[in-house]
Amino acid sequence: MTAIAPVLDQLDKNLDASLKRLFDLVKIPSISTDPAYAKDCRRAAEWLVADLKSIGFEASVRDTTGHPMVVGHHPGPKGAPHVLFYGHYDVQPVDPLNLWEDDPFEAKVKEIEPGRKVITGRGSSDDKGQLMLFVEACRAYKQVHGELPCEVTVLFEGEEESGSPSLKPFLEANKKELTADFAMVCDTGMLNRETPSICTGLRGLVGEEVTIHAANRDLHSGVYGGAAANPIRILAKILGDIHDDTGRVTIPGFYDGVEETPSQILSQWNNLGETTETFLGPIGLSIPSGEKGRSLLELVWARPTAEFNGIIGGYTGDGFKTVIAAQASAKVSFRLVHKQDPDKIRQAFRDFVQARLPADCTAEFEKHGGSPALQLSYDSPFISKAKQALSDEWPKPAVITAMGGSIPIVGDFKRFLGMESLLVGFGLDDDRIHSPNEKYDLTSFHKGQRSWARILDALAKG
Amino acid sequence: MTAIAPVLDQLDKNLDASLKRLFDLVKIPSISTDPAYAKDCRRAAEWLVADLKSIGFEASVRDTTGHPMVVGHHPGPKGAPHVLFYGHYDVQPVDPLNLWEDDPFEAKVKEIEPGRKVITGRGSSDDKGQLMLFVEACRAYKQVHGELPCEVTVLFEGEEESGSPSLKPFLEANKKELTADFAMVCDTGMLNRETPSICTGLRGLVGEEVTIHAANRDLHSGVYGGAAANPIRILAKILGDIHDDTGRVTIPGFYDGVEETPSQILSQWNNLGETTETFLGPIGLSIPSGEKGRSLLELVWARPTAEFNGIIGGYTGDGFKTVIAAQASAKVSFRLVHKQDPDKIRQAFRDFVQARLPADCTAEFEKHGGSPALQLSYDSPFISKAKQALSDEWPKPAVITAMGGSIPIVGDFKRFLGMESLLVGFGLDDDRIHSPNEKYDLTSFHKGQRSWARILDALAKG
Repeated sequence: MTAIAPVLDQLDKNLDASLKRLFDLVKIPSISTDPAYAKDCRRAAEWLVADLKSIGFEASVRDTTGHPMVVGHHPGPKGAPHVLFYGHYDVQPVDPLNLWEDDPFEAKVKEIEPGRKVITGRGSSDDKGQLMLFVEACRAYKQVHGELPCEVTVLFEGEEESGSPSLKPFLEANKKELTADFAMVCDTGMLNRETPSICTGLRGLVGEEVTIHAANRDLHSGVYGGAAANPIRILAKILGDIHDDTGRVTIPGFYDGVEETPSQILSQWNNLGETTETFLGPIGLSIPSGEKGRSLLELVWARPTAEFNGIIGGYTGDGFKTVIAAQASAKVSFRLVHKQDPDKIRQAFRDFVQARLPADCTAEFEKHGGSPALQLSYDSPFISKAKQALSDEWPKPAVITAMGGSIPIVGDFKRFLGMESLLVGFGLDDDRIHSPNEKYDLTSFHKGQRSWARILDALAKG
Repeated sequence: MTAIAPVLDQLDKNLDASLKRLFDLVKIPSISTDPAYAKDCRRAAEWLVADLKSIGFEASVRDTTGHPMVVGHHPGPKGAPHVLFYGHYDVQPVDPLNLWEDDPFEAKVKEIEPGRKVITGRGSSDDKGQLMLFVEACRAYKQVHGELPCEVTVLFEGEEESGSPSLKPFLEANKKELTADFAMVCDTGMLNRETPSICTGLRGLVGEEVTIHAANRDLHSGVYGGAAANPIRILAKILGDIHDDTGRVTIPGFYDGVEETPSQILSQWNNLGETTETFLGPIGLSIPSGEKGRSLLELVWARPTAEFNGIIGGYTGDGFKTVIAAQASAKVSFRLVHKQDPDKIRQAFRDFVQARLPADCTAEFEKHGGSPALQLSYDSPFISKAKQALSDEWPKPAVITAMGGSIPIVGDFKRFLGMESLLVGFGLDDDRIHSPNEKYDLTSFHKGQRSWARILDALAKG
């Protein structure tokens, strides 16, 4: 049995060095969606392998048909639990670059308000900052005690922002090597700056791209306007029909499999202090856009949505062009909850579009991933221990929450490796992940390291 | 009183020489939208002045703040009418150059199907080919009779493809010099290869760009989806609401000032042989998209429209990004008829958008031009004479038509010089003006010259 206090002290002493390591990792532009950065993705994987080896992990870069995986193993004391820690080293693109206040790949610490420092840079939060918390916790443990309290396997992926095409085959091919007692995933956030949270509900996702084709070429709207089908008009009409006036989705069968959240959970959520004002105020909004009559946290954690993520058609440059486009397209996504079936939702959307097409137009569909929602147990022993460890570290006790986004890996761990996951992360809602000026609070980075050290310690203590 | 037959014979004899002159004019790349070709625009103007002088016109290049005008005067017999002929010597850009089968600036005659020859090249139709018809008609008249049957003023513009910024000031500054009994504009087309047409109705245009602003930054749809307003959804809903199920525009007051077209005109149009199949078939469509219960030609010639010319918002690159955009925008245009008021239509559209905005979102509007529709008289004496002259030349009698697009010069002649216009042209729908491989039928070029000679002759005959 080891003591946790000196490990926490060590993390405090290591903070500057750990920041420097994170800056080095952020410097590598490992943008997985853009083939131009493939070499950088590999460099990030190699950097992580070297760092894990320096701590004493047996680690290697593992090739896939896409960007490589990083796998590392470290033994633990006899009888201690075996945990698999997952994170991803790839990051989102940085465009539009002109909206960044600081270089996205030159991380630095900056005070954004009195007493609040943040780490700037792409990946500072999602997910380089978050995954390094665990690495730093292991490093400090090793430095103080010469061992880790649990057996640890780490899996760092390089395609999370690209839909993780290589992940399932990799899990299946390496099932024995990667299966542990449970997984730990650090890709989520805190309820607020004082309250850590453990996420037990994750919405699923269906992504679709629809292109409406009308005339066989772009047309002059003076000559053809009023006679020729306009694909932007058709697309707008279809998208406009997807929600009714109460914010419900009108696609037939869309709500099949959606369950009402238990009232005791809803009332817990109502007591978390999150209001329309606290949630929407910081992003400049004030009116929840979802189904009327539901609380804000229920809308984002336990209700399905239809969102339009992108639309384009016709002339979009400066000035004006009186053109009727030959085609127009939209990227549409559905967030799923409970037992909604991704395949059925996809088909129902396609049927909905087809039913609204003029007979002389066609629709083309492209599939962009699909995963069901996931509901984890509220009260497994490892969740209870983690909850206590987090409550010991932060000003307020940890809470059980759900999450609006999907983390497909959690479902994959369950399906392919039979593992439950512990979802703990220290991101904040204003981290601007996926946007210009991504940041990670210095407190998240510091107390996040200490939190993982405490969790490892708590899990080891049977 | 002069005889027309020898003038027509002279035109037949001159055909090869007239082709050579057109080729010389096409050779000058007078692209008005690109400053790199400013010298070429001036060269084209100088070429026209020299050619007009060779016929006996008193002609000159007239500077403007943009590309120069060409003005020429030729006296006519005492008591003969005075006509102003308008054309433009500037042409559209030629990109993408790789789609041209022939050099756009080396015009030539080419047989495209058995018995059908065309002149290839940028401007062969729009508008160098069309304006030279009139010049050739004058030349032949002069050669045969030593005089012209009418007093003729010509005005050739060099900025028609750039929005004619210098035209209104030039008309105002030279009102006395340019005012004639009526104007003749050769920038329109024939109903088909056998049927000449006189256009008496032109739709007006209102252009608007609307941008919907929601959150103060792009958001992750997993975190905020279901709570945060999505500007693409708001925009799609608004655009989707603009037409009802019968194809009518639902904006309040939109149809104010729209008149029902007289039944005798509608029945003339119904007998022109244009069907849904002939009009929409070549562009790959089969169902008129406008108001139900109206004929196809009525839809494009005499009914107003709302068209969406461009739309953009969110992520539009390859792949997928689960983003909720901060803004989305659309370019919208309205084709106007009869007495619809462009300012009222613009305001009604803005009110329509504002009324559908969630209270925490805003809309920004940008104006992109506006001009009312123009309805010329069906039966003025000069239109009747021109109609007879055209019917004498072509296999089928001339018809009175309308046009879906706008020709601002016609409204300017009316407003600034108090002149009605005669719109006669010999372009065909497949001339590909503004596109690669522009052409002009050799028959249009030959019989077009003869047509203008006949029209001048008919107008002189009181």
